[in-house]
Parts: sequence; structure tokens; C-alpha cells
Amino acid sequence: MFGCLVAGRLVQAAPQQVAEDKFVFDLPDYENINHVVVFMLGTIPFPEGMGGSVYFCYPDQSGMAVWQLLGFVTNEKPSAIFKISGLKSGKGSQHPFGAMNLPQTPTVAQIGISVELLENLSQQTPVASAAVSSVDSFTEFTQKMLDNFYNFASSFAVTQAQMTPNPSEAFIPANVVLKW
Amino acid sequence: MFGCLVAGRLVQAAPQQVAEDKFVFDLPDYENINHVVVFMLGTIPFPEGMGGSVYFCYPDQSGMAVWQLLGFVTNEKPSAIFKISGLKSGKGSQHPFGAMNLPQTPTVAQIGISVELLENLSQQTPVASAAVSSVDSFTEFTQKMLDNFYNFASSFAVTQAQMTPNPSEAFIPANVVLKW
Repeated sequence: MFGCLVAGRLVQAAPQQVAEDKFVFDLPDYENINHVVVFMLGTIPFPEGMGGSVYFCYPDQSGMAVWQLLGFVTNEKPSAIFKISGLKSGKGSQHPFGAMNLPQTPTVAQIGISVELLENLSQQTPVASAAVSSVDSFTEFTQKMLDNFYNFASSFAVTQAQMTPNPSEAFIPANVVLKW
Repeated sequence: MFGCLVAGRLVQAAPQQVAEDKFVFDLPDYENINHVVVFMLGTIPFPEGMGGSVYFCYPDQSGMAVWQLLGFVTNEKPSAIFKISGLKSGKGSQHPFGAMNLPQTPTVAQIGISVELLENLSQQTPVASAAVSSVDSFTEFTQKMLDNFYNFASSFAVTQAQMTPNPSEAFIPANVVLKW
């Protein structure tokens, strides 16, 4: 249902499903990550009236998970780019992953997606520094979503079949950036 | 082989293949696009010694296609985020899509990917304003490069057996980097 892409690395399309409505991607070597893209694969939409809140989770100095709300994805806005490089010193926010007890390791952060009622999402305030501009027109995308959904879903289904993404495979060290 | 994602919209995973080594994604309503993510799906790597140059193409006032080089994707750096919102007044650059005669419509731009030799890519200079930082500290990454190279090379070889990274391609003249 969801994909996650760290700029410069391979895309991940197989989150760990930690609860019926909660999905987690691992982000190895998170201290070298600036931007993360979270998107719906287009295969399965959210149930009507539902959307996803997107959290960044990283271990604090004592190894406790700190969660910060980055933003949202919905059927109408099925992708978003977030900047996480400024978040590591921020405070945690309320989050719905409390009982998950995700194992924390020092260099691995997580992206967590929680499927919730849209009206709940609208009452949550993401950390401002995570915002990377995304959409200018909401309505327009609702239309586009309907127009394009069939084409997209069928085309992706073919290529997706061979993809065996694995969070541990996405690790690309920063040195490749130097090639630029 | 490639995916393309406009921030806020559905991902596209089925580019039009306009030549054996050239792929094009349409970007409808491009004037409302800020960021575009281009990534390899992870199914098919570039052939050894090859990578992809990524172009943005939009129609100028007379309907002629203007092409601008955004950057590159390679097996070692299989995704990138580009900011295209500042490019519409820029000049075109040399590009390999000359003979394509892509039909231009006023509101539709394109992302073009051209598969080329890595040594050719290293001699091309993307438009500076398209860069979205994936690096915070140059020094830090130089260090990390040394620290991580072995881990990177070995883990990549194991987990991405199909991707055939080539260590000899990992070094590019420093002036190329400095241009960024």
C-alpha cells in the first residue's frame, strides 16, 4: 500500500505491518538522510474517510524512541516529501505507536504510517520544519486520482511483482553523493 | 526500470520508452509542480558502466520543447529529488532527445531519462537550481565515505546481486563535485 524513498537510495515498497492500521519502514544510517518521500503505491486506496499520518521515529541518546509527526498522505494527496535532517534535536510529539515497542538501534530510524480518520488527521499539527512544498491544488488531484488510477494500478502491478525491496538493501552510503 | 513521483501526486512507474535508451514521463499541469522524484524501481539495474541523465522538458511560449539537465541516477545513487519550480524561465541545455519530436502541449512537461556512459554523465553540468540537497556536510561525507566504503561495497554486492555496481566507477574528478 505504501512506498518510502530516501533521496539517493533505493525505493522501499514493503513496510513492516506492525498493526492492522500501522506500517513501519526502517531507515538505516538515518543521520545521513535529508529527505524522505512517502507515497501510496496506488494499488490500494485508503478506506473512505481515512488517511495516513506519517511519523519519523528515531532513538534518543538513551535509546528511547522519539516520534515526530511529519505530515499526511491521503487518497487526494498520495505522496509527500519530508525533510528530516533538522528534526533530530526536536522534541517528540503525541503518537499512536506507543504500544508497538519497536526495537531501537542507534543508527536506524523509522517512518511510521498510521491509518486514521481524516477528521482526526486534521486536528494534528506536524512539525513545521518537516514540510517540503508539495501540492498547490487539492481538488485538482482528486480528479486526477480518479482519472489515472486504473492506468497506474495496472502498470505498477507488473513491475511491482519482481520487486523484492528489503529495508537493509536500501543502505547506500553517502560517498556515492560525491560522484555528483 | 524507472519511477517518477511528483510531490503530492500518485507515483508513475510506466514511462514511455521513446528509444532503446530513452524514457519519458509526462508531467501534466507542470506549472503547479515544485518537486519531482526520479528513481530506479530496483528491478533492472543499469548495465555496467552506464547511468541515467535526467532532463526536464517543457514547452516555451512558442510551443518548442526546452530541455534542461536536472541531474543523474546511477546504480550507486538510484534516486534523486529535483526542484523544478524555478526552471521555467531558464535556458535550454544540450540534450540527447533532439530527434524525438515529442508532441508538446501547453500544460504538459516531461521528465526524460537517457541511459548513457557514466564517463559521459560526469562531463555534464546540471542546472544548479534543480539540486535538492542530499548532503549536509561535505567533510562529514568524505569521512563517511572512507568509513563506509567497505561495508557499502560488500553489502551492496550481496543484497543487490543483480545490480552489478562497479567500484572503478566510484571516482569522479573533483571539479565535477565542486560544480554542485
